[in-house]
Amino acid sequence: MVDRNQKIRSRRGGGRNARRASRREKFSQASKPYIERKIPYFEYLSEESLDLIEKNADILLQEIGIDFLDDQEALDMWKDAGADIDGTRVRFPVGLCRSIIQKSAPSQYIQHARNKNRNVVIGGDNTVLVPAYGSPFVYDIHGGGRYATIDDFRNFVKLAYMSPAIHHSGGTVCEPVDLPVNKTHFDMIYSHFKYSDKPLMGSVTQPDRAQDSVDMAKIVFGEEFVDQNCVFTSLINVNSPMTYDSTMLGSLKVYARNNQSTVISPFILAGAMSPVTATGTVTQILAEALAGIAFTHLCRPGAPVVFGTFAAAVSMASGAPTFGTPEPSQILYVAASLARRLGVPFRSGGGLCASKIPDAQAAYDQLTHSKQQL
Amino acid sequence: MVDRNQKIRSRRGGGRNARRASRREKFSQASKPYIERKIPYFEYLSEESLDLIEKNADILLQEIGIDFLDDQEALDMWKDAGADIDGTRVRFPVGLCRSIIQKSAPSQYIQHARNKNRNVVIGGDNTVLVPAYGSPFVYDIHGGGRYATIDDFRNFVKLAYMSPAIHHSGGTVCEPVDLPVNKTHFDMIYSHFKYSDKPLMGSVTQPDRAQDSVDMAKIVFGEEFVDQNCVFTSLINVNSPMTYDSTMLGSLKVYARNNQSTVISPFILAGAMSPVTATGTVTQILAEALAGIAFTHLCRPGAPVVFGTFAAAVSMASGAPTFGTPEPSQILYVAASLARRLGVPFRSGGGLCASKIPDAQAAYDQLTHSKQQL
Repeated sequence: MVDRNQKIRSRRGGGRNARRASRREKFSQASKPYIERKIPYFEYLSEESLDLIEKNADILLQEIGIDFLDDQEALDMWKDAGADIDGTRVRFPVGLCRSIIQKSAPSQYIQHARNKNRNVVIGGDNTVLVPAYGSPFVYDIHGGGRYATIDDFRNFVKLAYMSPAIHHSGGTVCEPVDLPVNKTHFDMIYSHFKYSDKPLMGSVTQPDRAQDSVDMAKIVFGEEFVDQNCVFTSLINVNSPMTYDSTMLGSLKVYARNNQSTVISPFILAGAMSPVTATGTVTQILAEALAGIAFTHLCRPGAPVVFGTFAAAVSMASGAPTFGTPEPSQILYVAASLARRLGVPFRSGGGLCASKIPDAQAAYDQLTHSKQQL
Repeated sequence: MVDRNQKIRSRRGGGRNARRASRREKFSQASKPYIERKIPYFEYLSEESLDLIEKNADILLQEIGIDFLDDQEALDMWKDAGADIDGTRVRFPVGLCRSIIQKSAPSQYIQHARNKNRNVVIGGDNTVLVPAYGSPFVYDIHGGGRYATIDDFRNFVKLAYMSPAIHHSGGTVCEPVDLPVNKTHFDMIYSHFKYSDKPLMGSVTQPDRAQDSVDMAKIVFGEEFVDQNCVFTSLINVNSPMTYDSTMLGSLKVYARNNQSTVISPFILAGAMSPVTATGTVTQILAEALAGIAFTHLCRPGAPVVFGTFAAAVSMASGAPTFGTPEPSQILYVAASLARRLGVPFRSGGGLCASKIPDAQAAYDQLTHSKQQL
């Protein structure tokens, strides 16, 4: 006969393990990998208006051009591709950028996660929701508002991991200030890999930090896998107006050459870095994005790439940035239409609001604006 | 020589009056009479799907029909119009309701305000924002949550009057409980006329209260003016599923025969008063609205009328109403498309949320849902 206590222990043990397994299973199922959109897009402008914006962006690229700063290699690559070089200024024959992009940019791609059940498809009719990026301050009920630390960073990674509505671990979920700046990226990438198995964004603050990110991914996924598959979708901000600097260009080159995706994002405060009008701003956004997206394909044809945008405005009275106004939403709608016409995935950025705390105004402002999504 | 003090007094007096006049002028200008929409509509469904919903609504009207309760006159009017009467059940030959509506319902109309600078155009590409309707409870920082009184009612009327973003004084901006029920409507209509000069909604809780509202408007605007112009847009809720009762029919008849506008609003908690699916619910909404809108034109051809809708759902577990879910937004988008196809103005109703206080969730839920607008 089996000892009764042993039987109970064994049953209990089995039960506990079974419950644990069931919880794990349940959590894994609860986490939807991404949204497959089945409803129509809201087309804010007519085809005719979009045609005009594209035509004007081509004129900007041809007549004004884009500065590629402190990067002779980039200038040489553009010269080979048929652009006109004048100092650091690159001017593009009409249609050059678009033809480079449409020759080889994928309209959608898989970004692989450590847990393959959490792979996401970026582009097409899919929507991937990603945590906020780059907050210098954090706020909690005990500590109040303060600068972020690596512990806060880890907590945000864990929160995004546990949330079934967030499909991605994000990148700089906050800016930790308690570690040496030249080493923080190791701890950030490590935290994403350790505390989450969702896909992530790599470091972009120096080209060698981008390379460190890729090298860490190779430890996790294997060298060949990383070369043949996308495991990072990283954020390259344009130094608007009409400028790419060597930091962003260097990081862009590292990711593109390693077959990793970048989000080419004109970062605009309208009125300071672009015309004050929504139409003028979105025209400049398109010109900047076309140049950057095409450049990724000079680095490695076929590399995945995303059309991103961040738009806010400055107060014409004080020069201070304004958040939570309707114009950025108008710009996002139009930029998304332009990305669909170009045939590349789109990222809308910034759940922007003018409120300092998560109150009714914050929710209202954010929804009249939009959330970060790929 | 003029006495110096007198001069100062006179200058001061002039200054004060001028400042007052300037404030009045400024306030009058700040208050936009309504929004002229210049951006496209979001068409949630394809033409093909909308065709199918219209076809199915016709089948509902023909085979199931609508009950018109305790109102022999209404049944006789439908019989004369060519419908089939069986007890209180009215069944409609395919296309009957639509043809009555499209023969004489205006696609837009002017609702006159006491101050003609605040007249609104309802329908077409215009949007009129209206205060919330029918809240039994109010909340303030001193009194907390409690039943509403006529003083609260007056304060809400004043608040809506002062808000440049609200184009209309609304109707039952809250439900005062401190006056006799059979007399409250006098105080409510009087408050709208006294404390605001924006357009308003009339009483609908009994046919004689609707008549009292019209009679009060005649004192303000003159008898002939009221007969020839719209000064009320009042809310007629359908007793869903598929039923109009004598209270609502009686009030509808009073307003329509006086050439006043009504918002014919199927009031639906999906799962309890309609099918659980969004498509099933919106099909029923269309059938109910077609019958009610057509009936206003049996009362007085050409009278202004609005296609309204209120949709929420009940929990399939508890039967409790649910608020702040995505389905009502889907239903509103589709119902608005159907109203545009029918050629009548549309009212979306209910900034619905599951929160009990005006916090972040309330703002978030409301925006994923929508606000009351004509």
